[in-house]
Amino acid sequence: MATYKAPIREIQFVLNDVLDAGQLSALPSYGDATMETMNGLIEEAAKLIEEQIAPLNASGDTEGCRWNNGEVSVPKGFAEAYQQYWQAGWVGLSNPPEFGGAGLPYTLSKVVDEMLCSADVAFALYPGLTVGCFEALHALGTDEQKATYLPKLGTGEWTGTMCITEPHAGTDIGSVKTKATPNGDGSYALDGGKIFITSGEHTMADNIIHFVIARLPDSPPGVKGLSTFVVPKFLVNADGSLGARNPVRCTSIEHKMGIHGSCTCALQFEGAKGWMVGAPNTGIQNMFVMMNLARILVGLQGLGQCELATQNAINYAKDRKQGKAFNGGETIIDHPDVRRMLLTMKATTEGARVMAYETGLYVDLAHHHPDPAVREAAGDWVELNTPLVKSFCTDSAFDLGSLAVQVYGGHGFIREHGVEQIVRDSKILCLYEGTNGIQAMDLVRRKLMMHNGRLPQRFFAKLRSESTADAPVGFIAKPLREAVDELEKTTQWLQESFKTRPDDVGFGAVDFQRAFSLTYLGYNWLRMAKAASLSTNDDAWKLSKLTTAQFFAQRMLPQVHALCANVRNSATELMTLDAASF
Amino acid sequence: MATYKAPIREIQFVLNDVLDAGQLSALPSYGDATMETMNGLIEEAAKLIEEQIAPLNASGDTEGCRWNNGEVSVPKGFAEAYQQYWQAGWVGLSNPPEFGGAGLPYTLSKVVDEMLCSADVAFALYPGLTVGCFEALHALGTDEQKATYLPKLGTGEWTGTMCITEPHAGTDIGSVKTKATPNGDGSYALDGGKIFITSGEHTMADNIIHFVIARLPDSPPGVKGLSTFVVPKFLVNADGSLGARNPVRCTSIEHKMGIHGSCTCALQFEGAKGWMVGAPNTGIQNMFVMMNLARILVGLQGLGQCELATQNAINYAKDRKQGKAFNGGETIIDHPDVRRMLLTMKATTEGARVMAYETGLYVDLAHHHPDPAVREAAGDWVELNTPLVKSFCTDSAFDLGSLAVQVYGGHGFIREHGVEQIVRDSKILCLYEGTNGIQAMDLVRRKLMMHNGRLPQRFFAKLRSESTADAPVGFIAKPLREAVDELEKTTQWLQESFKTRPDDVGFGAVDFQRAFSLTYLGYNWLRMAKAASLSTNDDAWKLSKLTTAQFFAQRMLPQVHALCANVRNSATELMTLDAASF
Repeated sequence: MATYKAPIREIQFVLNDVLDAGQLSALPSYGDATMETMNGLIEEAAKLIEEQIAPLNASGDTEGCRWNNGEVSVPKGFAEAYQQYWQAGWVGLSNPPEFGGAGLPYTLSKVVDEMLCSADVAFALYPGLTVGCFEALHALGTDEQKATYLPKLGTGEWTGTMCITEPHAGTDIGSVKTKATPNGDGSYALDGGKIFITSGEHTMADNIIHFVIARLPDSPPGVKGLSTFVVPKFLVNADGSLGARNPVRCTSIEHKMGIHGSCTCALQFEGAKGWMVGAPNTGIQNMFVMMNLARILVGLQGLGQCELATQNAINYAKDRKQGKAFNGGETIIDHPDVRRMLLTMKATTEGARVMAYETGLYVDLAHHHPDPAVREAAGDWVELNTPLVKSFCTDSAFDLGSLAVQVYGGHGFIREHGVEQIVRDSKILCLYEGTNGIQAMDLVRRKLMMHNGRLPQRFFAKLRSESTADAPVGFIAKPLREAVDELEKTTQWLQESFKTRPDDVGFGAVDFQRAFSLTYLGYNWLRMAKAASLSTNDDAWKLSKLTTAQFFAQRMLPQVHALCANVRNSATELMTLDAASF
Repeated sequence: MATYKAPIREIQFVLNDVLDAGQLSALPSYGDATMETMNGLIEEAAKLIEEQIAPLNASGDTEGCRWNNGEVSVPKGFAEAYQQYWQAGWVGLSNPPEFGGAGLPYTLSKVVDEMLCSADVAFALYPGLTVGCFEALHALGTDEQKATYLPKLGTGEWTGTMCITEPHAGTDIGSVKTKATPNGDGSYALDGGKIFITSGEHTMADNIIHFVIARLPDSPPGVKGLSTFVVPKFLVNADGSLGARNPVRCTSIEHKMGIHGSCTCALQFEGAKGWMVGAPNTGIQNMFVMMNLARILVGLQGLGQCELATQNAINYAKDRKQGKAFNGGETIIDHPDVRRMLLTMKATTEGARVMAYETGLYVDLAHHHPDPAVREAAGDWVELNTPLVKSFCTDSAFDLGSLAVQVYGGHGFIREHGVEQIVRDSKILCLYEGTNGIQAMDLVRRKLMMHNGRLPQRFFAKLRSESTADAPVGFIAKPLREAVDELEKTTQWLQESFKTRPDDVGFGAVDFQRAFSLTYLGYNWLRMAKAASLSTNDDAWKLSKLTTAQFFAQRMLPQVHALCANVRNSATELMTLDAASF
C-alpha cells in the first residue's frame, strides 16, 4: 500500500527560504499569518491528513462509489473523514471570516491542498469543488444569494459543484443546451442534462449547491448566450432551514480509470429551481472566475500525486534488495537507472512545488497588496502561471506515477502496492478543467498576447535578473540563461505567427508549454540551490538539494532547446493532409 | 468500447514493399511461404481475431479472473475462443510440423501476434507463453521429453508457462530458492514458491506444462547454480494419457492494474515431480533460449497495443465534433494539437511495425538461411534488436495509450470508451521479461560490446548506405545521417566508458536505448518513404505516408541529439549522493 508522510521540511523550505512567504503577514488582510502560525497550521493539517485521510486512499479506490436509484454512496469512511475535515476548519481555511472561513492566505490553503491531494486525491475533490463553488458565488452572487448559501458553503458544511459539461459540450462549451426559463418570480426553471459532475450527488453533506451554466430563452447562440445559476439540491427557506428537494436527479455515475472514491455524476435538471448569478449572458466570464482558481487547484492535485509517487518510489528503492550495484550497493537505489528515475522524480516534484506555491502567493498579492503596481504584476504572474501549473504538475503526476511503477518493477503493477493507483488517479488531472492541450492554447493565444506581451516580458526579465550571478550556482545559472534566450526567441516567433499562421502556433503549443515550464523549474532550482547553499546546519540535506539541482540543470533543463526547435516549424503540410487519409 | 480492425494494408506494405518478406520463400524450409500464401493466412487470422477475440477485450477486463480454492476461472468466452484459436492452427503456426505446427515463418507468426495483441493482449498471453514453453523444450529437451510434451504443446492443445520469479527474486534471478531434489529415478521433486506466473493455473486446456527454474542440492550459489525443469500439471503416462495431478498448487492470483483477463498466479510446488531440461546448472542459459524470443513477443504485444490506441484515437478524432478549427474543420482531427497527437501515434506505430517485423525476419534468416555469413549477420541483428523492440514498442504502447485518452478528452477516462484500458494493459509490458531498464543494460553492456562492437557497426553501416541518396527523400535522409553520426559518437563513448565508468553508462542507458530506437525508426521511415514514393496507384495513401515521414523527420528524429547529449555525461556526483539523503 502507498503510504504518505507530509514533506514538512520541503514545504517549509519553499515557503520560508525560497519564496519568503513571511511577506504575507505584512499584508493588511493577513496580519495574523506569520510564518510561525502558518507552520503550526501546516503541521496540524498534516497530522489529520496523514492519520485520517491517507488510510482511505486504497480502500476508497477498491470500493468506489455506488449508484442506487438516484442515490449515491461514497466509500466507507469518507463521510466521517469529511465531517472531521470541515469541522476542523480546513475547507474554510482561506475563505473570509464573515462566511465561516478562517481568512488565512490562499497560499496556505494550497499547501494544505497539496497534502490532501497526496493523501487521497479522490477525497480531495469534495472540499475542492466546494471551495470553487464558494469562490464563484462570493465573487458574483447578490447579497441575498451570499447570505443564503455562503455561510454553510464557506465552512464546507454544505458541498458545491460546477455543472458545465454536457455530452456534446466539453471543450466546446458554447454548445451547452441546458435551458433556464424564468418562473416570473425572479427564479428560473432549469432543464437539461449535465455529465461529469464531480460530487454531483451524495449524502455526506446536508445540502449540495450547484453552480450551473445554462442558456436563457432567446439568448444568442454560442458562448455569448450562456448564463450562470445557483441551484441547490434542497431549497433553502428564509430562516435558513432546508425546504423541498429540487428536481435535480442523478441518473448514473461513471465507471472510471481512477479517482474511484469521487462520484462523477450525470445530473438531470427537470425544472429545478435556480437563481441567476451575475448578469444575463455573462456565463462564460462567470465560469472563468471559478475556472481559473480551479485550474490552479488541479495543479496542486498534480503536485500532491507527484509527491506521493516520489516518496513511495524512494522508500521502496531504499528498501528493496535486488542484486549488487556497480558501486557495491545492495538496494536498488544504487542501481544507476533507478537513481536516474528517482532524481527525475525529485527534481520534478520539488521544482513543481515552488511553481505551485508561488502561484498561490501571487494570487494573495494580486488580491491583497496595497500597491496597485504590485497587484498588477502579481496578477500577470497568476495569469501566466495558471496554464503552466495546471499542465506541468498534472502531466508530471502521470509521468511520475508511471516511473514509480517502473521503480517497483513487476510489483508496481499489483494493486496492493498502491503505485499503479497514482497512474490511474492522475490521468484525469490532465483532462478536466480544460485538457492540457487547452491550457497550451490559453498560454500561446492569450497569455503570450495580452497587454502587448507584458506577461512573458516580466517572466524573462525576472529570470534574467535572478540568473546573472554565477558562483556558487553557475552550474544552473548558465544553462538557465541559455534556456531563457531560447524560450524568448520562440515566444517572439509565436507572437509573430499568432495571426497569420494559427495552425503552426497550435501545433507547437504543447511543446512550448513544456519548454516554458521546464525553464520555470530552472528558475526554481536556481533559487533552491542558492537557498540551500546558505544553509549551514545540515550538510547531507544541502548536498541533496545541490545534487538534484545539478541533475535538473544537466539532464532536464536542456530539453528546452529541442522542444523550442520543434515549435518553430511549419505545420502547413501536416495540417493539409486530408482527414480521410489518416 | 475500443474496436479493432486489422490494418491489413499497412501490414502487407511493410512485408511486401519495405522488407521484401517474399525472400522467405527462397529459404529451403519455407518453400511454401510465398507472399500470396502469407497474405491469405494474414487475412484469415484477421477475420478470426476481429470477430472472435476482439469482442472479449472489454468484457475480459471487467470480469477478470477468479481464484477459488486453488482453481482459477478465466473470463467468459475465453475458453471457447482459445479452443477455436488453437484448433484453427494459429498457436502452432510457426512450430515444426513434426510437433503439430504448420512450419511457417516465424515472421508470419509475429504478424498474427501483433493482431492478436491488438484485439486482446490479456488473451494473447495464453498462446504466447505456450509457444515460449514449446520453444524452450524444443531447443533443450531430450527426445523423450519432446515426444511426451511437444505434440500437444506444439498445437496449443496444452498450454505452457515459464516459472522464474520468486518474491525476493525478480531481476535478481540468482537468488531463486526453489529446490529440485533427485528422486533417484531420473525425476526430481520440486519445492518452493513462484509468483507472477502467467497462465499458471486454469482449466482452458487439459494440461499445463511448467518450465521451471530451480536449484539442485549442492549447486553453486547465484545464477551459476540454476537448472531448468519441466513440470506438468498432470503427469503424462507412457501411452500419452494423463495421470496423477502433480502437487503444484495455485495459492492466489494477483489483482492488477490491467490485463485482467490473464491469470497471474502464485504457484506452490510441493514435491511436484519434474524432469531436468538441459544440463545441470545451465538454467540461466536455458532460460534465455526462451527469454530472448519472449522479449521479441513482448515487443509485438506493445506494437499491438500501439495500433489499438492509434486506430481508435484516429476514428474518434474523425468523428467527434467539438468547436471549429482554425482551418474551418468541424471535427477535432482538424485541431492542430489533436493532429500532433495523432501523427505522433501514427509515426510511432508504423515505424515500430517495421522494426518488429524486421526482427522476426532476421530470426527466420538466422535459423534458416543456407549461407552462414547471412545467418551470422541476421543473428547479430536479432541480438541488437531484441532490447530495442522490447523496450521501444512497450514504452510506446503506454505513451500512445495515454495519448489516446488525451484525444478522447474526459471521455477517455471513462471505462466504457475502452482507451484507458490500453494504458492499464500496456504498463506490464514495460516491466515483465526484464524491465525496460534491464533491456537498456542488455543493450549497452552486452549488445554494444560483443564481437568487438560488431553489432552496432553493422547497424551504422546499413543505415549509412541506405541514407546516401537524397531525392526524393532528402527530407528524412539528411536528419537520419545526422542522427547516425550522433548515435555512433555516443556508442563509442559508451564502449570506452564501459569498464572504467559503469555507473555513467548505466545512468545513460535508457536515454541511449530510446535514441537508438528513434534512429532505427528514422531508417524505417526512410524506407517507407522510398517505397511509398514508388507507389503509383493511390495518391492519398502515398501522401499520408510521406506526410507522416516528414512529421517524424522534423519533430521526432531530432530528439536523438538531446538524448545522446544526456548520455555523454558524468553521473559521479549523482551516484555518490548518500541514499539516506534522498
